[in-house]
Amino acid sequence: MSGVAPGRSAQPEAAELLALAETGDFERLAALAGDLHPSDIADLVASVPDDGRLRILQALPTEVASETLAEMEEDEDRAQLLVALDSARGAELVRELADDDAADLVGELEPADRDRLLAALPSEEAEEIRDLLRFGEETAGGLMTTALVSVPAESTAGEAIGEVRRRGREVDDFYTVFVVDETGRLKGTVPLDDLILADPADPVASLAEPLGATVHPDTDQEEVGRFMGRYNLVAVPVVDASGVLLGRITFDDVVDVMEEETTEDILKLAGLPDDEELKSGWREAVRTRLPWLVLNLATATLAASVVLRYKDVVEGFVFLAFLMPVVAALGGNTGTQALAVTIRRIAVGEDLRPRPWGVVGKEVLVGLLNGLILGLCFALFAYFLDGDPRMGVVVLLAMWTNIVVAGFAGAMIPTVLHRLGVDPAVASSVFVQTLTDLVGFAMVLSLAAALL
Amino acid sequence: MSGVAPGRSAQPEAAELLALAETGDFERLAALAGDLHPSDIADLVASVPDDGRLRILQALPTEVASETLAEMEEDEDRAQLLVALDSARGAELVRELADDDAADLVGELEPADRDRLLAALPSEEAEEIRDLLRFGEETAGGLMTTALVSVPAESTAGEAIGEVRRRGREVDDFYTVFVVDETGRLKGTVPLDDLILADPADPVASLAEPLGATVHPDTDQEEVGRFMGRYNLVAVPVVDASGVLLGRITFDDVVDVMEEETTEDILKLAGLPDDEELKSGWREAVRTRLPWLVLNLATATLAASVVLRYKDVVEGFVFLAFLMPVVAALGGNTGTQALAVTIRRIAVGEDLRPRPWGVVGKEVLVGLLNGLILGLCFALFAYFLDGDPRMGVVVLLAMWTNIVVAGFAGAMIPTVLHRLGVDPAVASSVFVQTLTDLVGFAMVLSLAAALL
Repeated sequence: MSGVAPGRSAQPEAAELLALAETGDFERLAALAGDLHPSDIADLVASVPDDGRLRILQALPTEVASETLAEMEEDEDRAQLLVALDSARGAELVRELADDDAADLVGELEPADRDRLLAALPSEEAEEIRDLLRFGEETAGGLMTTALVSVPAESTAGEAIGEVRRRGREVDDFYTVFVVDETGRLKGTVPLDDLILADPADPVASLAEPLGATVHPDTDQEEVGRFMGRYNLVAVPVVDASGVLLGRITFDDVVDVMEEETTEDILKLAGLPDDEELKSGWREAVRTRLPWLVLNLATATLAASVVLRYKDVVEGFVFLAFLMPVVAALGGNTGTQALAVTIRRIAVGEDLRPRPWGVVGKEVLVGLLNGLILGLCFALFAYFLDGDPRMGVVVLLAMWTNIVVAGFAGAMIPTVLHRLGVDPAVASSVFVQTLTDLVGFAMVLSLAAALL
Repeated sequence: MSGVAPGRSAQPEAAELLALAETGDFERLAALAGDLHPSDIADLVASVPDDGRLRILQALPTEVASETLAEMEEDEDRAQLLVALDSARGAELVRELADDDAADLVGELEPADRDRLLAALPSEEAEEIRDLLRFGEETAGGLMTTALVSVPAESTAGEAIGEVRRRGREVDDFYTVFVVDETGRLKGTVPLDDLILADPADPVASLAEPLGATVHPDTDQEEVGRFMGRYNLVAVPVVDASGVLLGRITFDDVVDVMEEETTEDILKLAGLPDDEELKSGWREAVRTRLPWLVLNLATATLAASVVLRYKDVVEGFVFLAFLMPVVAALGGNTGTQALAVTIRRIAVGEDLRPRPWGVVGKEVLVGLLNGLILGLCFALFAYFLDGDPRMGVVVLLAMWTNIVVAGFAGAMIPTVLHRLGVDPAVASSVFVQTLTDLVGFAMVLSLAAALL
């Protein structure tokens, strides 16, 4: 399969997999599965109806079936699939998994199913999984694996290589050896390439990279991701409060986390606060979106009710009913731009606190300029249509003000929320929309009442 | 620094760094810099005014200064900084960099500065950088480094370790050895941990992982990122059309790419199509945002002009001027939700093409339900305020229709664009907004004209 670019590999059909599982041709099934990456098998399995999935997972070689389960997503109902397997097979598949993947999967089960499955595992492995389950799902503890290679600080490079050879078969995909003291406190990390390059007599302590980068089990996963990205770490050690090494988090877990967090941020900005799963069904989608839309109905009604207060003005100048939504829309769009830029600056870890006025000041300045240009354009157009120059003045002032307010609010609100330690995404967007609607309507109508 | 959680390490002030550079206390400067990660030094340097930056970069040990430049961002004007250094120092810093980082940095220079700098480098290194610069900045070729360790397919594990020891000092941070045939064609990859675990007499060919995962130099960086995330790859080989190994891309480059792409996606959804840099000044922000806002002014005006066509109706029922923006706003919000979910499904690599009607059907169904509930709420409210039950009917039908159209358009437009191979983000959002405004206004007014 050399030279295959992503997305272009020829995938055999899920139907083929299913047919082989159904006819019981385990040999050809194993051969076919061996040519595929577990991620691809997971996609194929997810596309098959429930009892077909079950049959494939029963028939696949244990190791492949286990990796396939690990690569499936929570919203592809892999927990239900695990429960539906006969219980010896379920336990067998979980045993094959790395402890972090096992804990993620077991954590998705209902409590009763979870207890049944853990009871079917050897007690030591069940205990390990239980230990990991104590940590919050979105924390460093929830991401880490406890499988790692560590060596005492007084070892030589040669001894460390020996330890890698002894322990390495039980540990998947590791790129670093951890150096610890006699109490288990982490002293440093040695990348495998440096270990191979070193003279076997070199003390590992002299090879170890200084310990700038460790996280605690309760560190938020988003922070772990930012941290690994910032310091280009292939693996980050997790230590407790006294510095004792508990586990490691590898880059591949963090790549998944980054995708999740991006989805969350984008959906939040679009008014989906409840972390709707991308593949969720319509019931779930109604449940997550409706509360937000109801809130929006209330705020939009509130903003539009300005019209009712200025009923006479609108009656006298119906042209205003044409102007208002345009002024409100441009305010809304400017606000969204300022909001997205500011929220993203916060999300990539820029520290805006030392100079909040720089951020807000920039958006106000941008609003002053864009607002003047857009206001002039629309004022000329309004004057051209209506013939009354005072209508042009109303439009210019209303749009200009609204766009400046939008820039100010779009930058100010997330900055303030961030300072208060509140996640800025959701609340900001509804507030900015309501504000720009309100200011847009109120400015057009009050200026019209005063000037026309 | 054991046990330091991200964001909480005590950073000495940039002022201290600057003071040491200015007093010429190079020894203490080097000691201080040695305690910091280059990413942190880069942030400190970026926070200092221009000639202070220059002085720090002149005074830092060469290796540290070079890594600091690599960790600075394009929008922190690192290219100008490099040009401002005396030219021998500039060349020295570039020589220290890995070839991919060097090419990124040199690529940011003006053509004349670039030629001057490349002329100051040894011709072989200049050639390497020139080769990498031929590839597009956002492609696999633009991300890859050519520094790697490869071994012939007939080597043993022991010979491969020997090759790692010979070549490894010139190659930074590698986790994999590449196996190639006599023509340079990639045959497989061997992770370092497996190499250490193997019997020295084992042929590397027996250790090599099958070659599912390679990319071409012109593969888009976003696809490379998705690919590495999907297959949990710490490094992906880049091969030409005949399978010859050209370079490798490591996970840390991809983490940066993912952050960039997330920023792009979020800004695009907010109507910032021109990839505004997050830290850009107000001039840049006006330039990137204004064209989009002008387009928005045009489309919002177009949508609102429906009001002018129904002037008499509005004159008769000013209450409609209150209803219209609410109906339009709810349509807009529903459309944004459907759009964000669908765009994100495409972005995470879900293939929606086999069942576009499933995606669109779900959003229409969600719209039918949410629209009915929201329409009923607002219809009752309108009836309560206005007293005319026919007003309630107008509101119910207008809002329901608009929300269903919004769900349909929000899912349909990105799906169709994706099918056509067009990036869905920007065009979709302006279209959905305009459509929901238009349908909102037109439904309220035409129903009112017919029923009231």
